[in-house]
Amino acid sequence: MYHVVFDCRGQACLSRTVVIQDNRERILNTVKVSLGDAVSAVEVEDSISLLEAVSRINELHIDAPCGGKGTCGKCKIKILNGEQSGPSEKEMEFLSDREKDHGYRLACLVDVVGDMDVLVDDLNDKSQILTSHHGFTGDLNPLIHKKYLRLPQPSLDDQRDDLSRILESIPLNNAVVSLPLRKKIPNLLQEAEYAVTAVYSSDTLISVEPGNTESSNYGIAIDIGTTTVAAYLLDIKTGKIIDTVSGLNSQKNFGADVISRIEFSMQGPEKLKMLQDKIVSQIGNMCISLEVKSGISKNSIYSIILAGNTTMLHLVFGIDPSGIALAPFIPGFLQAMNISSTELGNFPLDCIIYSLPSISGYVGADIVAGILATRMHERKELSLLIDIGTNGEIVFGNREQLYACSTAAGPAFEGAHISCGIGGINGAVDSAVIEDDVIRYTTIGDTDAVGICGSGIIDIVAALLKSGIVDFTGRIQDADEVEKESTASLLKKLKVDGNGSAIVIEKAAKSGTGDDVVFTQKDIREVQLAKAAISAGIATLINKAGRDLNEIENVFIAGGFGSYISKKSAGVIGLIPAELLDRTESVGNTAGLGAMTCALSSLSEENFRDCGKITSLTEYIELSTDSFFNMKYMEDMVFPKY
Amino acid sequence: MYHVVFDCRGQACLSRTVVIQDNRERILNTVKVSLGDAVSAVEVEDSISLLEAVSRINELHIDAPCGGKGTCGKCKIKILNGEQSGPSEKEMEFLSDREKDHGYRLACLVDVVGDMDVLVDDLNDKSQILTSHHGFTGDLNPLIHKKYLRLPQPSLDDQRDDLSRILESIPLNNAVVSLPLRKKIPNLLQEAEYAVTAVYSSDTLISVEPGNTESSNYGIAIDIGTTTVAAYLLDIKTGKIIDTVSGLNSQKNFGADVISRIEFSMQGPEKLKMLQDKIVSQIGNMCISLEVKSGISKNSIYSIILAGNTTMLHLVFGIDPSGIALAPFIPGFLQAMNISSTELGNFPLDCIIYSLPSISGYVGADIVAGILATRMHERKELSLLIDIGTNGEIVFGNREQLYACSTAAGPAFEGAHISCGIGGINGAVDSAVIEDDVIRYTTIGDTDAVGICGSGIIDIVAALLKSGIVDFTGRIQDADEVEKESTASLLKKLKVDGNGSAIVIEKAAKSGTGDDVVFTQKDIREVQLAKAAISAGIATLINKAGRDLNEIENVFIAGGFGSYISKKSAGVIGLIPAELLDRTESVGNTAGLGAMTCALSSLSEENFRDCGKITSLTEYIELSTDSFFNMKYMEDMVFPKY
Repeated sequence: MYHVVFDCRGQACLSRTVVIQDNRERILNTVKVSLGDAVSAVEVEDSISLLEAVSRINELHIDAPCGGKGTCGKCKIKILNGEQSGPSEKEMEFLSDREKDHGYRLACLVDVVGDMDVLVDDLNDKSQILTSHHGFTGDLNPLIHKKYLRLPQPSLDDQRDDLSRILESIPLNNAVVSLPLRKKIPNLLQEAEYAVTAVYSSDTLISVEPGNTESSNYGIAIDIGTTTVAAYLLDIKTGKIIDTVSGLNSQKNFGADVISRIEFSMQGPEKLKMLQDKIVSQIGNMCISLEVKSGISKNSIYSIILAGNTTMLHLVFGIDPSGIALAPFIPGFLQAMNISSTELGNFPLDCIIYSLPSISGYVGADIVAGILATRMHERKELSLLIDIGTNGEIVFGNREQLYACSTAAGPAFEGAHISCGIGGINGAVDSAVIEDDVIRYTTIGDTDAVGICGSGIIDIVAALLKSGIVDFTGRIQDADEVEKESTASLLKKLKVDGNGSAIVIEKAAKSGTGDDVVFTQKDIREVQLAKAAISAGIATLINKAGRDLNEIENVFIAGGFGSYISKKSAGVIGLIPAELLDRTESVGNTAGLGAMTCALSSLSEENFRDCGKITSLTEYIELSTDSFFNMKYMEDMVFPKY
Repeated sequence: MYHVVFDCRGQACLSRTVVIQDNRERILNTVKVSLGDAVSAVEVEDSISLLEAVSRINELHIDAPCGGKGTCGKCKIKILNGEQSGPSEKEMEFLSDREKDHGYRLACLVDVVGDMDVLVDDLNDKSQILTSHHGFTGDLNPLIHKKYLRLPQPSLDDQRDDLSRILESIPLNNAVVSLPLRKKIPNLLQEAEYAVTAVYSSDTLISVEPGNTESSNYGIAIDIGTTTVAAYLLDIKTGKIIDTVSGLNSQKNFGADVISRIEFSMQGPEKLKMLQDKIVSQIGNMCISLEVKSGISKNSIYSIILAGNTTMLHLVFGIDPSGIALAPFIPGFLQAMNISSTELGNFPLDCIIYSLPSISGYVGADIVAGILATRMHERKELSLLIDIGTNGEIVFGNREQLYACSTAAGPAFEGAHISCGIGGINGAVDSAVIEDDVIRYTTIGDTDAVGICGSGIIDIVAALLKSGIVDFTGRIQDADEVEKESTASLLKKLKVDGNGSAIVIEKAAKSGTGDDVVFTQKDIREVQLAKAAISAGIATLINKAGRDLNEIENVFIAGGFGSYISKKSAGVIGLIPAELLDRTESVGNTAGLGAMTCALSSLSEENFRDCGKITSLTEYIELSTDSFFNMKYMEDMVFPKY
């Protein structure tokens, strides 16, 4: 029971809601949240966490990779005013002295017991999100057609009913026609004097509009990632991308990875509904943003094509994903779907929503879109597709047969289990080298370092390996263990010891946080686990196909991470086999591109059908029970010797 | 703006509703309506007609064939209490002295200006409605299937998603599955331990139920006639008709015929909505009646199949039928449809509603169902189907080609334009002969005569013709014009002269109304027009096909009227060509039977598809512009010479 009042700009504009709880009259607590210039507020009952309270404001995204369990320490929030218990010891571990001084707390560990004023740093919404891709090429023959019809006027010699008059002109005799559209047609035809534009797909009459509106035909392709969501507004008539918007997935305060989200949804149907509402509201807002940015009316947008991993698609449709979380990992559905947007409830566009099919619980429609975009399923030569997002999915094969697997490799490369790990936001260390016995790095936005993002993590590990500061087993050396004098001297400068050893990338005095930016021994172990999972996954698929590394002609690195990493560093740490580096290319957001291909290309209908063929062509390899994978995973835990 | 309170049993149980109208606070008028023991009430604003006020009570049906224009004189109602202006001269013409004395008025001509108590005679709801038919024969292979599935439990070797696990067992790989059902499946499978019953049609997974429910599979076939509605509850598993309910079409106070209903709907979208709500609410209530009577749960009823004329189907779906009323008579749609019952708004069953396709604006799905039921479209020999309901539709031909037309013949045979004409209610004269110079008749229910129904009308005209009281031109003779002494004497006894001459069938003293039951010269003219329309329609179709009367092997008389008329009398008055009487059979409610055939028979799917074939096979002949028809219509106005 809550009531949200937005944008009261700090004024006391709230009405107070009184509820009956346990037979007593209660006044709800008001939590006022400042973010930059905007102030929002929410009324909540007693004893829910501050994280949950803030999450109920749709526009607000707080990063909470652990899903509110108090284990990741990411959901820091500044409390300006309001009753609160002191932080627990557990919480203290996550807060720096400076943060403690300034009133920062972990939102998930604070219970709301009265009115509160809080401040959310707006770093979270400024991530660099990948919306670039190889781009669309090809003739146009989209999923949604428009045709201007000057229908013959009815007469006693032509008594066809209104609907047949339209359907026989498209021609689409057995089309599905919704009841609301059937109701609209008789008057519309008369008023438009039988000059109308039909909007239709291969089996459905979607709309009929008065006059000639052939030139306005738009669609939106959306890639729902666990971390980020990207939406592309497409001009179906020209094939051009009109505009793009993207943002962090608004579900991320319910967990950084799919498992945390599923676990949250398993707490009850209302939690599943909450996750669905979050993402539906987000993609609805993105559509409106695209409308506003482009000046194109939402009435000319007839289709949305969704790609995303299997769990994200369950959540957007409100279908229970719990089977995916536990062995034997059974999804509720994998098939392509198309529904009317009205079925999603309160959605700002009236259009058809298509979603691409998935391959398994952990190889989703985003990977199907990636296969489609790279055309691996049509190539004679062997290709390898590696999509390292929040999970790491790998596909291998050619037009005869494809193999796919999924590894839990992603989060480390997105900074989730790395002590100073962050997403690709301003101040993130995104590249690093050790040259002339000095560590040099760059940050996104050229600002003071606040943490390390995926490409920085790989560069740092590669640099530490190459310099000899870390050996092939992953251990940070002591100064007396290294032979080279200059290395020993650098090591002395960089190494600190606290709860285990760590390398200081930037000192507190020069960092953007007022704390040291470090890379710890534990962080190196996380990278070893993650890179071993990817490289063992690649090896397992190649082995399953009875093929050899040298036979591979293309390696496609997809996803945000893939676009920014140094291929050379990836080879140094053994993430990608060194033999393949010369035929490796970054292909950008193939999920988005695949979805666009379905909406737009000359073969769009065939493409949509191809997605079904791709799912049949692809054998899913379950790694958790694969003995070859497990052996290789252990082997690949060490770094290549350098 | 109104508020209905039911069943207050005469007590002052009404709450008064205050509305703001034209910026003034107003108390609505309360109209209390007694019908037998039941009292209903409705609150209405000023200045609507009493007919409209009473119509807003869903359970109440007042006969008003002219649609409230004050021209048919049928909507008589007794005013017990309440302010009223005196009846106009126009109204006086319709009221007998006895009726005036007892406070009867025409409801359509009384404006509500304050609270009123009124009494509705309950004759209206006691019509005999035809629900009998030739009956269903054949093996069962229904539109809706059920199959009990013991699905393999998921494992790491069988990671199929929940939905595929079901669809691959039916098998129905590309089935349509609604979003609500997709949401239900994951939990349902787990809770039912993978032992479930799938409910499906040829292309749609309709439901999934825990355990084995194969034995419960029911459907409802409904024939929506302009005058009557009949619903049949069918056991899909055994093919048995479990129960039947029927009633007068609750839209009838908006007009007796399709044109009056369409005209009413053209007064604005809210009027169309009102007509839709009436019939949707009525069929909903009929479904609930069937549930209650049979004890079968509505959850086991998965489909409703609708037949009806083109206008009735427009109205039930809320699709504007106005194009049907005016040349060139263009319907909004003719195609078969299937929708979820939820699309009709507040409907008590959650099922699929199928409607059969129509042929033209005036040859509807009821006729398609009739063709299907008589299998005319499969017969090598030539057949003739005559369905005389509120309209008169005729179909002629064989499996090579069918011709269909519609004539405005019906209303006279349903008593609409006949002075003492009534439907098949208690007290209706339903058969008559002149024997031994006496007119003898029977009535429905063996009660005192209150009017004449269709079969009585035909018998009376045939008897008058045979006796020589009426000559072949249709003129009631004067006593001095007939040769036979006894006829002249009978004529003197029966004939009265007022506004034109008339034959007294029963005198006021012995009638059930206290007024003479008469058959007027004008009534005979109405019969001549109606029977000429039918016989000229038959001749036109035969001529169009280049065939001859003698080639016809079957004549099927369908509909309520067809079941009760004397074939012999129909031959005497020339309604059916005398040559065909020996091969004429009454086939009952073929519309209902056709709809049932689609739900049940061994070929039900083929049958449903056949309906599409029937509409392609059938050429609609527009009679209004057919010169052959117009010539024949003039010729057939006279009776056969006797």
